[in-house]
Amino acid sequence: MTLFQRFCRIFRVNPWLVRMLIVFTVSGGCVLAFSEAKQENGMTSDSSEADSKKKKVVVLGTGWAGINFLKNLKNPSYDVQVISPRNYFAFTPLLPSVTCGTLEPRSIIEPVRNIVRKKNVNIHYWEAECFNIDAENKKVYCRSNIAGNLNEKEEIDVDYDYLVIAIGAPANTFNIPGVAENCHFLKELEDAQKIRRTVIDCFERASLPNLSDDERKRILHFVVVGGGPTGVEFSAGLHDYVKEDLVRLYPKVKEAVKITLLEATDHILNMFDKRITAYAEEKFQSDGIDVKTGAMVVKVSDKEILVKNGGRISTMPYGMVVWATGIGTRPVIRDFMKQIGQDNRRALATDEWLRVEGCDGIYALGDCATINQRRVMEDISDIFRKADKDNSGTLTVKEFQEVLDDIRERYPQVALYFKNKRMRTLVDLLNNSKGDAVKGSVEVNLEQFKSALSQVDSQMKNLPATAQVAAQQGSYLADCFNRMEKCERNPEGPLRFRGEGRHRFHPFRYKYLGQFAALGGEQTAAQFPGDWVSIGRISQWLWYSLYTSKLESWRSRASVISDWTRRFIFGRDSSCI
Amino acid sequence: MTLFQRFCRIFRVNPWLVRMLIVFTVSGGCVLAFSEAKQENGMTSDSSEADSKKKKVVVLGTGWAGINFLKNLKNPSYDVQVISPRNYFAFTPLLPSVTCGTLEPRSIIEPVRNIVRKKNVNIHYWEAECFNIDAENKKVYCRSNIAGNLNEKEEIDVDYDYLVIAIGAPANTFNIPGVAENCHFLKELEDAQKIRRTVIDCFERASLPNLSDDERKRILHFVVVGGGPTGVEFSAGLHDYVKEDLVRLYPKVKEAVKITLLEATDHILNMFDKRITAYAEEKFQSDGIDVKTGAMVVKVSDKEILVKNGGRISTMPYGMVVWATGIGTRPVIRDFMKQIGQDNRRALATDEWLRVEGCDGIYALGDCATINQRRVMEDISDIFRKADKDNSGTLTVKEFQEVLDDIRERYPQVALYFKNKRMRTLVDLLNNSKGDAVKGSVEVNLEQFKSALSQVDSQMKNLPATAQVAAQQGSYLADCFNRMEKCERNPEGPLRFRGEGRHRFHPFRYKYLGQFAALGGEQTAAQFPGDWVSIGRISQWLWYSLYTSKLESWRSRASVISDWTRRFIFGRDSSCI
Repeated sequence: MTLFQRFCRIFRVNPWLVRMLIVFTVSGGCVLAFSEAKQENGMTSDSSEADSKKKKVVVLGTGWAGINFLKNLKNPSYDVQVISPRNYFAFTPLLPSVTCGTLEPRSIIEPVRNIVRKKNVNIHYWEAECFNIDAENKKVYCRSNIAGNLNEKEEIDVDYDYLVIAIGAPANTFNIPGVAENCHFLKELEDAQKIRRTVIDCFERASLPNLSDDERKRILHFVVVGGGPTGVEFSAGLHDYVKEDLVRLYPKVKEAVKITLLEATDHILNMFDKRITAYAEEKFQSDGIDVKTGAMVVKVSDKEILVKNGGRISTMPYGMVVWATGIGTRPVIRDFMKQIGQDNRRALATDEWLRVEGCDGIYALGDCATINQRRVMEDISDIFRKADKDNSGTLTVKEFQEVLDDIRERYPQVALYFKNKRMRTLVDLLNNSKGDAVKGSVEVNLEQFKSALSQVDSQMKNLPATAQVAAQQGSYLADCFNRMEKCERNPEGPLRFRGEGRHRFHPFRYKYLGQFAALGGEQTAAQFPGDWVSIGRISQWLWYSLYTSKLESWRSRASVISDWTRRFIFGRDSSCI
Repeated sequence: MTLFQRFCRIFRVNPWLVRMLIVFTVSGGCVLAFSEAKQENGMTSDSSEADSKKKKVVVLGTGWAGINFLKNLKNPSYDVQVISPRNYFAFTPLLPSVTCGTLEPRSIIEPVRNIVRKKNVNIHYWEAECFNIDAENKKVYCRSNIAGNLNEKEEIDVDYDYLVIAIGAPANTFNIPGVAENCHFLKELEDAQKIRRTVIDCFERASLPNLSDDERKRILHFVVVGGGPTGVEFSAGLHDYVKEDLVRLYPKVKEAVKITLLEATDHILNMFDKRITAYAEEKFQSDGIDVKTGAMVVKVSDKEILVKNGGRISTMPYGMVVWATGIGTRPVIRDFMKQIGQDNRRALATDEWLRVEGCDGIYALGDCATINQRRVMEDISDIFRKADKDNSGTLTVKEFQEVLDDIRERYPQVALYFKNKRMRTLVDLLNNSKGDAVKGSVEVNLEQFKSALSQVDSQMKNLPATAQVAAQQGSYLADCFNRMEKCERNPEGPLRFRGEGRHRFHPFRYKYLGQFAALGGEQTAAQFPGDWVSIGRISQWLWYSLYTSKLESWRSRASVISDWTRRFIFGRDSSCI
């Protein structure tokens, strides 16, 4: 038994040790946070008036993409205006914890003004919602969304030189009838708060005296649609909340509680390793969470949900449905796509540099955009021409090798193809392709080159709609903006195969850093690059520490740790507020 | 310089010491709370099924009165049903702190089920709102208020043997036009949350680019109506919030912020000692809070408030109005009063034992009731007859002295009158009264007795509508219920002057324990019995520690302390959520 295993065992045998550890972590965190805060307070903001010569950058949205853009923007030669209906950034991976009262809503958010306050870049924030993008006149039209409280509507129009669209995406109802009216979503902080209240409301309603047993069971049937990380984490969190806290307060109704997780494909967590999927399904079964795979929702009425499972349609009475599957399109993006001829898409198409296709000076990142990768086959003649330096009509190994790095960078699918097939040179590529005429030859003509690369585009993949991608895109774009002038003079990107010279910047490249799925009961599944998988208590601690370290501020960190401590010691709160 | 003064000075010179102290207090609190929680967890609830022979007690409301009744009810021979639209108890004296983001809403509340879970009395809680009290059939009709979330309406009717009405009172608009539509109130936790959001909304709106200076000033004009403790604490808290936190985040609009406090009488905090009033008015003036006394609100429109001050009517543009003056009547109470012939009153009239006049088995306490004190002059003949044991038609000193304690208890105004005039016997009383015929005599007839006591009823006072009164009434009533049978056999109350025998219980007697008013900037005014007044940092610490100790649970205490710590270290949050 290793020292580490022995250490873990001590904690398993004495669960109160875990609690004590948390208590000390909090105290330590507080002291640390205090010293940090002192330092921060020492700095004074010194923002000067906007310079009219500066380039105007308008950022729409303060989610992962927008905030990471703002945080990494360091070049003071821009005048930045941030427009978003929410004056805070929410750490969305912890949203499921808010739904079950483990964390307070305010713990996982950070005011935008706090984030941008100490920067040397001139950044203004306006609480408003963009309702129209006018690419022709380089203007966005916004409306103050404070109407609800102040009975006012205000319109603002803002000019831009560069527009960064990072407004995310709403949940996708797939136009299934009744979903928008009867389901809860889990995209915004307000959604999480509503779900929390509704869970308690269901328990309170089920406790009322004049109910039939069937009615009680209906009210306490919680249905989660979507077996992705959000749906799984919410189901697991709800199960823990019910088992650890609510049954003590509502002992009379505990038998009636049921949680059902509906997934349209064959397995939950299907973007994870098979080991994790299997473990999660097993754990949910032993926890009593009913996982129904291959189940498509057909309709949601106010008390029932219609589910199609292998051709058979069944009816499920429910108390609450949480819709955690797929992402849609915001109306302003849909209008904008029509305007620029990108109809019938879900998201804005951008090139590898995150520029919206067909527009000048407009960037889109995060969930509201997808990168439209260029196919090698589209450019194959240009690539061949560029590579064939001596214009001989054939490509030698040396000629190919000289442009291979540029090709790999411009067309990431080529890099992936070479890596998967363990190839390094043109000879490997030719050996791999089955064209007999090519084999043994060290030179290829265009047709042979085409046939050798014909399979390459099958390696193209869309990026997942995750916080990780959005955050990396935000940082990448800020880096480009920071070095705009420098790279204009000295382009650092790959060769332009269609045009002349080089691209200004390296194209955006997503770096997968791993993914978590909390399965409840202090068990978390983690998957890291290189097929490294970890499930259990250790990854739960990794989850705690990684998420804490990723939070925006020491205030937020201290709050989250103190919330966790509180829940360890006192359990979760059950007030309907 | 005393040791204590030196100690205080050290803290004043080194403000970070205060912060460190708080950090350690939290850590200590956590450990303490942890051990407490361990003990609590050890207890298991052992509630048996309702016994049909038990007397049914229905409690309406879970505010100060209702919760203190439940907490102190120890006699297991009752079957208790608690009905309230809120499944938690809110520690209302800390509500003003919630409006400014110093405390989180959830920190100052405690779920009702948590409070009653560990009791030996059979208590059921139902989340519903009573909309009709049927005194004739001993029934209350309730409606589940979870409709908003679950699209359902349910009606429940509940039988009772004893009904305890403790549903509090809403804010009183005095039928001034526009108040209900345009003002914020500060009675419930939801109100506090709304105010918090509105303050931030005002700052965000005032930061928008297309506003005139006048419009910006209007939006940032915060008007507080009512110079009682709530209005004063809110004004002071808002001032601190603006000065300490918001100006850093909204530096461009800080000049436009204005806080106005309107009070209809001549002074703010007029229920406090004059020294406190003077100090508060001076502090507010130096803080820049505009205190307008003698100002009556005439009308509130959506952007302006009309104020009458000494005959002159002026118009004030505003961004937010908080209405913190007076209490009104809930519709269900108004209907019930009509039913029992108590029309045209603000609150239910009860006798000194908190029984609603003219009803059987119905008690009312807290803000929805007032004790209708019996006048001595009403009963004067009965008192005389009862005291005159030998039926001689005259009262001797000895005869009077024998019933004096009962008189004092039954008619508290007599006790007050005797105390104020420093009297002890009938002779003192007769000497005091100016009737010449009586002077020197040691016996009095009815007419002389009447004239001697004629001034007594002027000492009658209504109890203030405070949490302190409500809490004491709740505890008192629970104590009566606990000893109902025992006192039925051995009555402990004063003589019944109108009827025969003794009253079962001592009448309710309010004990004033002191009062706080937080004035902002770590300054608090405190007034204690015996005209003891303290203003400043020391009473602020007293305020901190007293309020913390009075909270319902260790969870709540730990949360409040950690919230205070957070605000000391990191300041208050400004996210609009």
